[in-house]
Amino acid sequence: MDVEQFFEHVITVRMNDDLTALDIIDQTLLPTTIKRIDLGTKEEIWDAIKKLRVRGAPAIGVAAAYGIALLASKIEAKDYDSFSAEFTSIKDYLASSRPTAVNLFWALDRMQRVLVNKKGETISQIKKALFHEADRIRAEDVEISRRIGEIGFSILENLKKEGTEIGIMTHCNAGTLATAKYGTATAPMYVALEKGWRGDDMHVYCDETRPLLQGARLTSFELFNSGITTTLQCDNMASILMKSGKIDVIFVGCDRVARNGDAANKIGTSGVAILARYYGIPFYVCAPTSTVDLATPTGDQIPIEMREPDEVTEMWYRERMAPEGVDVFNPAFDVTDHDLITGIITEKGLVHAPYDKAFEQNNVKN
Amino acid sequence: MDVEQFFEHVITVRMNDDLTALDIIDQTLLPTTIKRIDLGTKEEIWDAIKKLRVRGAPAIGVAAAYGIALLASKIEAKDYDSFSAEFTSIKDYLASSRPTAVNLFWALDRMQRVLVNKKGETISQIKKALFHEADRIRAEDVEISRRIGEIGFSILENLKKEGTEIGIMTHCNAGTLATAKYGTATAPMYVALEKGWRGDDMHVYCDETRPLLQGARLTSFELFNSGITTTLQCDNMASILMKSGKIDVIFVGCDRVARNGDAANKIGTSGVAILARYYGIPFYVCAPTSTVDLATPTGDQIPIEMREPDEVTEMWYRERMAPEGVDVFNPAFDVTDHDLITGIITEKGLVHAPYDKAFEQNNVKN
Repeated sequence: MDVEQFFEHVITVRMNDDLTALDIIDQTLLPTTIKRIDLGTKEEIWDAIKKLRVRGAPAIGVAAAYGIALLASKIEAKDYDSFSAEFTSIKDYLASSRPTAVNLFWALDRMQRVLVNKKGETISQIKKALFHEADRIRAEDVEISRRIGEIGFSILENLKKEGTEIGIMTHCNAGTLATAKYGTATAPMYVALEKGWRGDDMHVYCDETRPLLQGARLTSFELFNSGITTTLQCDNMASILMKSGKIDVIFVGCDRVARNGDAANKIGTSGVAILARYYGIPFYVCAPTSTVDLATPTGDQIPIEMREPDEVTEMWYRERMAPEGVDVFNPAFDVTDHDLITGIITEKGLVHAPYDKAFEQNNVKN
Repeated sequence: MDVEQFFEHVITVRMNDDLTALDIIDQTLLPTTIKRIDLGTKEEIWDAIKKLRVRGAPAIGVAAAYGIALLASKIEAKDYDSFSAEFTSIKDYLASSRPTAVNLFWALDRMQRVLVNKKGETISQIKKALFHEADRIRAEDVEISRRIGEIGFSILENLKKEGTEIGIMTHCNAGTLATAKYGTATAPMYVALEKGWRGDDMHVYCDETRPLLQGARLTSFELFNSGITTTLQCDNMASILMKSGKIDVIFVGCDRVARNGDAANKIGTSGVAILARYYGIPFYVCAPTSTVDLATPTGDQIPIEMREPDEVTEMWYRERMAPEGVDVFNPAFDVTDHDLITGIITEKGLVHAPYDKAFEQNNVKN
């Protein structure tokens, strides 16, 4: 399928054709099952956000905006005050679905401002205006991601060697499944498809991203389905992938960027950046300005969420965790350059570089 | 329990008291169940090696040595030639259990040399000599690991600050479960216990080591049971652990060391070494001289085994993968230093360091 068909296929959230329900892809069933479901009641919408059927900050914002527009369109009250009262109770109810999702509150507040600004207009005009605002919220997210993709694509164009695939690494899921369309870290690749690149002009290597495996379950799923050449690897395999020369550039998303540029993102991102520095590979952070926090001087002031041990000690996920048929890079061992080793301890002693001389002097073999 | 009780508890392989069977800890049941089983027949011994109930190169060698000594002791033939014929058929049978395990053949060949050298002595003298050789193979492995541990312990002593725990990181399992007693990467810690250190004088951070989770299932299990303060983390969490200042030194095992010191070890080890270099943390490879391969000039000549995709894409392990109660380090995010970021892409443009100035000039917030 072409890239537009792909987006139709995996689009996180939209209104159904007769505007009677939200139409979402149920992300809890990925990567094994691609199923779109309709959400018509406030309970269904609340449940879908709560249970992560729709997840990713921008996608949650869009879902909340369309959700409250849909539910408001079904309010039967004819006068502004009772309409407003019902709207507010729906808003408070939806806001309770994920108490930590800032984009959820941001989108709902923005929708409520429409209600306030339109006071005096008819209820049906207000109902229309609410759908328009939801459309705008979605369109803005698409546009932000598209611009990030345009800039990232120009980086890809500069690095691309004619007739060879360009190797790209990413971490976690900053993809279409987390946003309204392009994703952030994935936007350069999807824009490349729109610009006419073939799927095999690129080769994207996805870190599986332990413990919750968003890279395996979501990123490798969406890239694989988009037709882009995709390989999945465990996080600890990134080093020899970079060493092998397969990686030309790295794009990651981010949750928050401090004033000095320190970027908070999914656990493991800083390690990828250090490996990239060591191997001389460019490392780009794709960050909507909404994530840039000038009030935070450095990353040291960004609090890091500590999560439950059982994510690490028990398999929360008992189905397969990557799409059938996705390519996997799974080496058993790697080689550590002697230059990185402080010392080698054998039963005959501790030796330091140059090791060949040291091994002789140490008679390691007799 | 003290360290000697611990070793009794988890010793990988030994003869039972009346020399009628091998007594091993069934490693396929770890970390959930600690069960010792007796192996009395050649089928039971073959199956235990085949099914990884005993694993780790040195431990396999010891199991094979005791195994063939045990089976030889049950041969009823009274003359040398028929005894030798039966011995050889048992040897060939055991050797077929794991065709890639070099230590298996090494140990069996060494046992056969005893048979050859003892030609002329009585069958019962030969049977005794075989048990003695197996004892020697085990004792040599214990001694090699103990010496590595002594050297590693002197490194710990030099780094230890009075009244504080010393932070140690390790990767995969180069522990007692892989050897006859001390392990290699774990030997410094176990020797420290023997020298009188308390379990909370050390804090060992174990990478879970995807895809097969030896760090979670085996290393965190054995260290936790030894009484050493133990924390388990996903591989991609090593970077911020090092950044946090919790890690004073890193010990890893190795499979093969090239003449120039390049060290092949479990996938992910080279990444740990690069992070250690970046954060200025000493990184030591614990390598029995049997792993030093002077015939291999550099790591580039060491072939790397590529393994099956389903290890990564499906959960081969459906039980819990770390011992009940082990401490877990599970941050959701980390912060990437701006100095490691090539550029930050917002929808308003690509910016480079210094980022605070760039954000202003780029008007990211208006």
